[in-house]
Amino acid sequence: MAQEEKKFTDVNELGEFGLIDHLTRGIDRFQASTIKGIGDDAAVIRSGRNTIVATTDSLVEGIHFDLTYTPLKHLGYKAVMVNLSDIYAMNAYPTQIMVSLAISSKYTVEALEVLYDGIKSACQRHGVDIVGGDMTSAPRGMMLNISALGQTREEQLTYRNTAQPGDLICVSGDLGAAYLGLQLLEREKEVYLSDKKAQPQLDEYNYLVGRQLKPEARKDIIDMFDQAEFLPTSMIDISDGLASEIFHICTQSGTGAVIEEAKVPIHSQAEKLAFDFKLDPITCALSGGEDYELLFTAAEKDLEKVRYLTDVAIIGKILPADQGVRLLSSGGRYHTIKAQGWKHF
Amino acid sequence: MAQEEKKFTDVNELGEFGLIDHLTRGIDRFQASTIKGIGDDAAVIRSGRNTIVATTDSLVEGIHFDLTYTPLKHLGYKAVMVNLSDIYAMNAYPTQIMVSLAISSKYTVEALEVLYDGIKSACQRHGVDIVGGDMTSAPRGMMLNISALGQTREEQLTYRNTAQPGDLICVSGDLGAAYLGLQLLEREKEVYLSDKKAQPQLDEYNYLVGRQLKPEARKDIIDMFDQAEFLPTSMIDISDGLASEIFHICTQSGTGAVIEEAKVPIHSQAEKLAFDFKLDPITCALSGGEDYELLFTAAEKDLEKVRYLTDVAIIGKILPADQGVRLLSSGGRYHTIKAQGWKHF
Repeated sequence: MAQEEKKFTDVNELGEFGLIDHLTRGIDRFQASTIKGIGDDAAVIRSGRNTIVATTDSLVEGIHFDLTYTPLKHLGYKAVMVNLSDIYAMNAYPTQIMVSLAISSKYTVEALEVLYDGIKSACQRHGVDIVGGDMTSAPRGMMLNISALGQTREEQLTYRNTAQPGDLICVSGDLGAAYLGLQLLEREKEVYLSDKKAQPQLDEYNYLVGRQLKPEARKDIIDMFDQAEFLPTSMIDISDGLASEIFHICTQSGTGAVIEEAKVPIHSQAEKLAFDFKLDPITCALSGGEDYELLFTAAEKDLEKVRYLTDVAIIGKILPADQGVRLLSSGGRYHTIKAQGWKHF
Repeated sequence: MAQEEKKFTDVNELGEFGLIDHLTRGIDRFQASTIKGIGDDAAVIRSGRNTIVATTDSLVEGIHFDLTYTPLKHLGYKAVMVNLSDIYAMNAYPTQIMVSLAISSKYTVEALEVLYDGIKSACQRHGVDIVGGDMTSAPRGMMLNISALGQTREEQLTYRNTAQPGDLICVSGDLGAAYLGLQLLEREKEVYLSDKKAQPQLDEYNYLVGRQLKPEARKDIIDMFDQAEFLPTSMIDISDGLASEIFHICTQSGTGAVIEEAKVPIHSQAEKLAFDFKLDPITCALSGGEDYELLFTAAEKDLEKVRYLTDVAIIGKILPADQGVRLLSSGGRYHTIKAQGWKHF
C-alpha cells in the first residue's frame, strides 16, 4: 500500500489576505481596550477617553523597491507615506512612527543618512514624531518596516465594514499613475542594462514617475472632511488597486457596488502611457495599486457636501449584496470586478 | 594633485547605538503627546489621561536565528517575548501587538501555522491581543518584526535615566545562560554537519537551551513590584548583556556604578558549561545577552522591600559619575566595564 504523503500548501494558494485570515482565525481577545483588531487599515485601541489607531507596513528590497531607480531618500519618504495613508484611511491623524531597519553591510552610514532624510522629510511634512525603532544587519539587501500610531475621537473613525446600499462611492486624486510610473521605470532599466550609455526618457511622464517614487498620503482630504463637517460612511486607502479595495468594502459591509468606468479619474499622462504600452487605462486604475488615494462612501444625504469637495470624484454607488461588485463600462456593459491583492508572492 | 576621494563610513564604525543616535539626532518634535522618544526600552505617548508605551523589534534569519536548531514555534514565541520584555522594562503591561512577516517562497502554509502557534501561545500567556500586521514575500529567508503596545499610569513608568548615586542595583533571574545555550546549539550543529548520524547532546544542559530558544518576559517581576508597592528608580531589560545595560543606565543617568562579581546570579548549568567551553562565567553574564531579565535600581530606603523580592538579587550600587562603571571581582580587584551591544553588524 502506498504510504500517505504529508501535504504542504504553497502560500500562493491562499494569497495574502487568505493567509492572514487563516493564521489569525479564532485568536482570543484579552484586552477590553482592543476596539478593532485585524481587518481594517489600522487597529483601533481605546485609551481612557481617547482612541489610538496603529498600523505597520514593510518595504522589502527586490520585492517592493529596486534601488536601480529608487533614490534612497524617496524610499524613506514612501515607507512613511504608506503607513500614514493607513492612518488617514481611518479618518485619524498620525502622531508617531517607529522605524525598523535591517540592512546588509553594503549600506554605508552616508547611504542611511539619505534614507533617513527622506523619513524625516515625510515626518516633518505631516507633523509626525519618530519615537523609536531598531536597527540590525541582514544577510542581504534592505528591509524597512514602519509602524505608525495616530489619534482621533472614536466617533470620527471610519471603518471598512459600514457602507450601506445607496451610498455614493468616491475617490480622491487619480488612479493607475503609480503603476504606469513603475512600468516606465522598469522599461528604462531594461534599456539601460542593454546599453549603459542610454539616458532615461522620463520627462514626458514626470507625473507618473513622481506618483511611483514619491506618493503623498492625503492629509488634505481628511482636513477637508473636517472643515466640511463631513463623515464618510466607510473608507479605505488604495494600496492594491481600486478593484481590491472596493471588494474589501463590499465584502466587509455585506453589500454590492457598481463603479462607472467613465467616472474613474485617470491622469492624461497615464492615459497616454497606457496607450503606448498597449494597456487599458481602466485596468491600470483597477489593478495597478500604490495610488495611496482614499476610497470612501458617502450617505446620499451628503451628496451636496461631496459634490463640492476638491479633487474628489463620485465614481459609483453601493448596492445590495445580490447585485455583485461590477464595473459599468463606457460602452454600457457590466463586468464583474474580481478581487486583487497579494501581488508580491 | 591627488583628487579628493569621497569618504564612505562603514556602519560598524558607529555601532548600533551610535548609528541610531547619528541618524536621529536633532529630529523635530511636533506632537505634544510624545513624552519619550528614542532612547529607552519603549516610547511613551500620552493619550488623554492615559499613557501608551510602544516598542518594536525584528528577528532576521541568518542573523538572530538559525532554523537548523530553532523550532519555528519557539521562534514565534521568542519574537513576541523580546518585545513584551521591553514593555515590562517600562513597568507597563503589554496590551496589543502587530506582526510583520517577510518570507521567501520556501515557507509553506503549514510552517507559518507553526510559527503563529508560537506567537499565539506567547500572546495567550501574557494576555496580549494580535491586532494587526502585514505579510509579504522576501527574496530570501525570513524576517519577523513585532511592534508592541502597552499601557500604564504615567507615575508608574520606569526610565533608564533616573538612577541616583546610592541606589541598589538589582537583577531578576540569572544571567549568561541564553548565551551559553547558543554556544551549545552551535557546537551540536557543527557536530551534526560533520556526521549526520550524530545525535545532539543537550539533555544535561536543557535549562540553557530553553533560555536561548524560549525566553520568558518577566511579567511576574512587574506583578511583584505592584504587590509590594515598590517602584524602581530606573529599569531596563537585559537583551545585550549586563555590561551594556548597566552602561545605558549610568550614561543616561549621569552616574557611575560598581557591580560585585560574586553577587551576579549564574545558573549551575551555566557555570558547568562555561567551564567545559573554557569561558569565564562572569564574562558570559556581562556580555552574553538575550537573558530578557530585568535590571533595575532601588532607592536605599527600599532595601527591605527589595531584599524579600523572589528571584531578585542585589548585585551592586549606583555611584557618582567620577567613580566610573566597574566590576569588583571575586578576588577583590576593580575592572572597568566596557559597553557592548551591536553584535549583529
